[in-house]
Amino acid sequence: MNTQKKYFIKFIPSDKSIKISPNYNLKQAIVDSGIHIDSSCGGVGTCGKCKVRIIEGKVDTKKSRFISAGQKEKGYVLSCLSKVKSDLIVEIPKQKKSRAKIEKGRFAETGSKIYAGISRDEFSSVEIKPWIKKEAMSVKKPTLSHGTSDLFRLKKAIGENLGIENCIVPIHIIRKLPLILREKDWEITVTVDRGNSTLIDIHSGRLSKKIYGLALDIGTTSLVLYLVDLENGKILGSESEYNPQIKFGEDIINRIVYANKKGGLEKLREVIIDSINNLIWKLLLSTHINADSIVSMMVSGNSTMMHLFYGVPPTYIREEPYVTVANKFSSSTAKEIGIKHIKNTFVYSTQGVASYLGGDITSGILSTGMYRDSKLALFLDLGTNGELVVGNSEWMMGCSCSAGPAFEGGGVKCGIRAVDGAIEKVSIDQKTYKCRVEVIGGGKPKGICGSGLIDMIGEMYLRGVIDRKGKFNEDIGNRYLKCVDKDCRYVLISGKDSATGKDIYISEVDIDNLIRAKAAIYAGIKTLLEEVDLNVYDLDKIYIAGGLGKHLNIRNAVIIGMIPDVDVSKYFFMGNTSVTGAYLSLLSEDKYRQSSEIAEHITYIELSVNMKFMDRYVAGLFLPYTDMKDFPTVEESIYSIENKKKK
Amino acid sequence: MNTQKKYFIKFIPSDKSIKISPNYNLKQAIVDSGIHIDSSCGGVGTCGKCKVRIIEGKVDTKKSRFISAGQKEKGYVLSCLSKVKSDLIVEIPKQKKSRAKIEKGRFAETGSKIYAGISRDEFSSVEIKPWIKKEAMSVKKPTLSHGTSDLFRLKKAIGENLGIENCIVPIHIIRKLPLILREKDWEITVTVDRGNSTLIDIHSGRLSKKIYGLALDIGTTSLVLYLVDLENGKILGSESEYNPQIKFGEDIINRIVYANKKGGLEKLREVIIDSINNLIWKLLLSTHINADSIVSMMVSGNSTMMHLFYGVPPTYIREEPYVTVANKFSSSTAKEIGIKHIKNTFVYSTQGVASYLGGDITSGILSTGMYRDSKLALFLDLGTNGELVVGNSEWMMGCSCSAGPAFEGGGVKCGIRAVDGAIEKVSIDQKTYKCRVEVIGGGKPKGICGSGLIDMIGEMYLRGVIDRKGKFNEDIGNRYLKCVDKDCRYVLISGKDSATGKDIYISEVDIDNLIRAKAAIYAGIKTLLEEVDLNVYDLDKIYIAGGLGKHLNIRNAVIIGMIPDVDVSKYFFMGNTSVTGAYLSLLSEDKYRQSSEIAEHITYIELSVNMKFMDRYVAGLFLPYTDMKDFPTVEESIYSIENKKKK
Repeated sequence: MNTQKKYFIKFIPSDKSIKISPNYNLKQAIVDSGIHIDSSCGGVGTCGKCKVRIIEGKVDTKKSRFISAGQKEKGYVLSCLSKVKSDLIVEIPKQKKSRAKIEKGRFAETGSKIYAGISRDEFSSVEIKPWIKKEAMSVKKPTLSHGTSDLFRLKKAIGENLGIENCIVPIHIIRKLPLILREKDWEITVTVDRGNSTLIDIHSGRLSKKIYGLALDIGTTSLVLYLVDLENGKILGSESEYNPQIKFGEDIINRIVYANKKGGLEKLREVIIDSINNLIWKLLLSTHINADSIVSMMVSGNSTMMHLFYGVPPTYIREEPYVTVANKFSSSTAKEIGIKHIKNTFVYSTQGVASYLGGDITSGILSTGMYRDSKLALFLDLGTNGELVVGNSEWMMGCSCSAGPAFEGGGVKCGIRAVDGAIEKVSIDQKTYKCRVEVIGGGKPKGICGSGLIDMIGEMYLRGVIDRKGKFNEDIGNRYLKCVDKDCRYVLISGKDSATGKDIYISEVDIDNLIRAKAAIYAGIKTLLEEVDLNVYDLDKIYIAGGLGKHLNIRNAVIIGMIPDVDVSKYFFMGNTSVTGAYLSLLSEDKYRQSSEIAEHITYIELSVNMKFMDRYVAGLFLPYTDMKDFPTVEESIYSIENKKKK
Repeated sequence: MNTQKKYFIKFIPSDKSIKISPNYNLKQAIVDSGIHIDSSCGGVGTCGKCKVRIIEGKVDTKKSRFISAGQKEKGYVLSCLSKVKSDLIVEIPKQKKSRAKIEKGRFAETGSKIYAGISRDEFSSVEIKPWIKKEAMSVKKPTLSHGTSDLFRLKKAIGENLGIENCIVPIHIIRKLPLILREKDWEITVTVDRGNSTLIDIHSGRLSKKIYGLALDIGTTSLVLYLVDLENGKILGSESEYNPQIKFGEDIINRIVYANKKGGLEKLREVIIDSINNLIWKLLLSTHINADSIVSMMVSGNSTMMHLFYGVPPTYIREEPYVTVANKFSSSTAKEIGIKHIKNTFVYSTQGVASYLGGDITSGILSTGMYRDSKLALFLDLGTNGELVVGNSEWMMGCSCSAGPAFEGGGVKCGIRAVDGAIEKVSIDQKTYKCRVEVIGGGKPKGICGSGLIDMIGEMYLRGVIDRKGKFNEDIGNRYLKCVDKDCRYVLISGKDSATGKDIYISEVDIDNLIRAKAAIYAGIKTLLEEVDLNVYDLDKIYIAGGLGKHLNIRNAVIIGMIPDVDVSKYFFMGNTSVTGAYLSLLSEDKYRQSSEIAEHITYIELSVNMKFMDRYVAGLFLPYTDMKDFPTVEESIYSIENKKKK
């Protein structure tokens, strides 16, 4: 008999409700009842985004700097800091639900156009040879004098036609084999996985050889899926969607924390698989392609995302010594994974290097072609995490810098992701200090996204709004700077011009977070290069991939000291190289093998315990860097602007 | 809307009932409702065993010689020849439900006693080395400088401890891997399938290495299951049961016919899997062994039984050119097969040669050791079918003779299987022609089983009751011979002394069936030997296996011309060599590989289209054989008995 008291919580305006035990965490109750609530700190009270209003009932809540006295009066609390003490009616404020226009795949045509995220050289090097093959063939009929089994004769035909000796034939195919062989007089069409030497499917008669595959990128923030014609490499359709796990934690660390809770891992796995099923279904509908013709799926993602996808606990990724359970997962059937529509299809994933250098980065290196190039290149993936690989065809070395979620809107009060309404570009008038902004999708701005923040810091530094430490110069006559005691805010957009009705501003705390983030990335680059006695001038190419890369103003990123101060022509924007790498691996057995070779080839440097990294990091807490010699053109710019002012 | 009329049939005395469509076959309705009804002809009206009585209602039935005028009056019909025309009440006569004492396994102790069905040499040659291995080991812990994945380190430990490189680790194990590795400080116990290089199970800590396996023989008539300690080869328990498919057809052909019906294959698979689950459960209960410690299962059976076990249509086994779907099935998990209790266990089966020379025969050859012996041997498996292999370590040749079900009680009016109440031995008094019989289990006899029938024919021939063509000598003053017109019956046991209250007799039709059966076997032996220019005197050893072999009187089998007239010391009784072969293959990787080599090594001769076989067969329709020179000692016996009579 369960006599435990349960409290009933009703949420408005959604009208959803839930029954929970006394003292249950209120934010968890909101998440459990399927309501999206913003949160970038993962429920520890430091981002202030999960504010809700208690209309009726009692909670036990902690003090928070995000709740003013007036708000407290009205019943506002941070849900993550509140325990439920009675039945409740809770109002959830409107959340930032707008969706980013996640880049959709364009059509790639072999040898002509180049798909975003893949270098021209790399694409031309692809020999389209997927390891799944569909082939029509004749099987030799049995006679009284040659009465070997159906299976033996099938294997022999596969051996002769496709060069696969002793192909594995699963029992579910053996069960239908005798009828299929005889239905069209021993003419059949087989679909074979050459990688696993396994027969995937069999039909009677000589059918079309047309087969299709799926390439999937599971990013921390978004999912991108391509449907690909495996005969000619054409991308017939693409779909994307936010990663639905966001509501359980915005970044990797918060996902892992959630996965460690009871039932958490299964929940995370469930929502991502649901989303993938949904994307597949949409693609099947829009392309009119039969699910049976989809023969393989290639998945690329960071190590945590891959653990969650396969339902493997990611616990130890965030505990010293930071190891994955696996960097390479064996191929599984879609059915084993829980993927519908294409359940007999084999699912593959690209191999990762380490806990914080996953298969998405392997895919990135594959897309750039740097692993085949004698020239020295740097690969930078600037997404929710910052990953770096430096090297060439001879050697590669990689690391991950905990840049923090600043560039994704975390830890920055007016920061948001690169969605409609996000300020993505900023320039500051030298005289009036008024900001001019460009907003994604046009219209009134809601907040600032990563590239806007980088522009902002760069411009503020160039225009003298902040000093090298990121502190406001209060004596320059900047009337957009509003200070209360020591708390100063530089207002980009006043409340009357913003979509939220509130000022869009940047504070010293925000600047501090951004400087720490950029310092981590540059320190990573320096440390990697110094490990092999090189410096930034030795780099021939710098590839920038990931969400942030799309809108990034290279010059401003250089000015703030985030990326090397080298000739801009060395920089290449690559877009989403994770899905591109999955696409290449899907198309070509060779590329897939190469991606595993890349993963095994990269030497991983763990920066969290690297003393040199710590030194570089501290040196990077200045704009652009402690030693200005690292950023000669920035020094020039500052000098020239100051000269202009003097004139 | 389904407006089709259904009829309701009630069966007595069981009180079971069923609803079926008009014109449905009555025997099928009985089977469908789960009631056992004897039938050895498979429902074509030629065995007369499925007689039932219509108490109420109407059927459309065909005439049958098995229904007398008086019986017809009372409502008796052959259910297989009857179509349902109204609601019915049907009386099912009591069926021969008694169970044979199927040989139970005795305990085998390595190197001392010899288990029935295995030659001493063969057992001593077994190196106990099952391909499943359970081993405790330490896994190297990760450090910051060596932060490879859990999976990589596990694979490395397995490689170092068990010599298996790049072991396959299924996703369900990867999911629990991080917790298990850390639970007992990186000490683990793994269970590995070395054959498939696959990790089967993993536990934290150093556990006992004890592992167990199951050896299963699926015979057409019965199932035998052993539970084996894989460390020392001890058989810890055994269970047996009738093959429950019997109620759908007594022999292979009738099973195939049933499998071709809608839902028939699935039904046959279902009942056999149910029985196997039941046997496993019984063994687990009686041995108190934990299901988790059972790591492998080896199945041996004829080709049709294996098709039905795996749910593969056996259709083409009985259609020219008589081919199997597969002679060798890949290993599957018990779960895939539908076996409960031990669902993660891999299930293997022994490889067969052809449609009518299955893995049970391969197992038999393995048990005898003849494949390693330079001496020429003949292996005879006399069960529901008759299979033969002749050869030595250099070569082997095999065939199957459609002996028909005569030796199992089919086609012989008073024939029954070797169950309690069956006459298994017969001798005839030379003067009175009275039969002396021995009954299995003692008590009043119910019928005659195979060995009794062979004795009967042999004795009748020796004593002059029948002539060389199998016809009764009506002029010898045999008062046990009762003739009505030309229909003569020789009464072994009169109604007052039988368990059924009816005479137990043999008729000329019965004798004819038996002569045809023995002729087929001897013709098979002759044909095989002549194919390689040998004759019966070249044989050094003759191994007799299978159900019939257990009670067989060798001398009488020689007298009727079924087996070669050679020195009796060359004959060896082996019992159930199918389960023994499965047991050997389970215990030893080498033996399992050898059994596959045996299967590939045997040249199969299809006798159904062999003209020489037909000649030998026709020559065998005399007792003992057309040419008496083949049976010199029989000729002597006859001569000596005739001499005695003259004295």
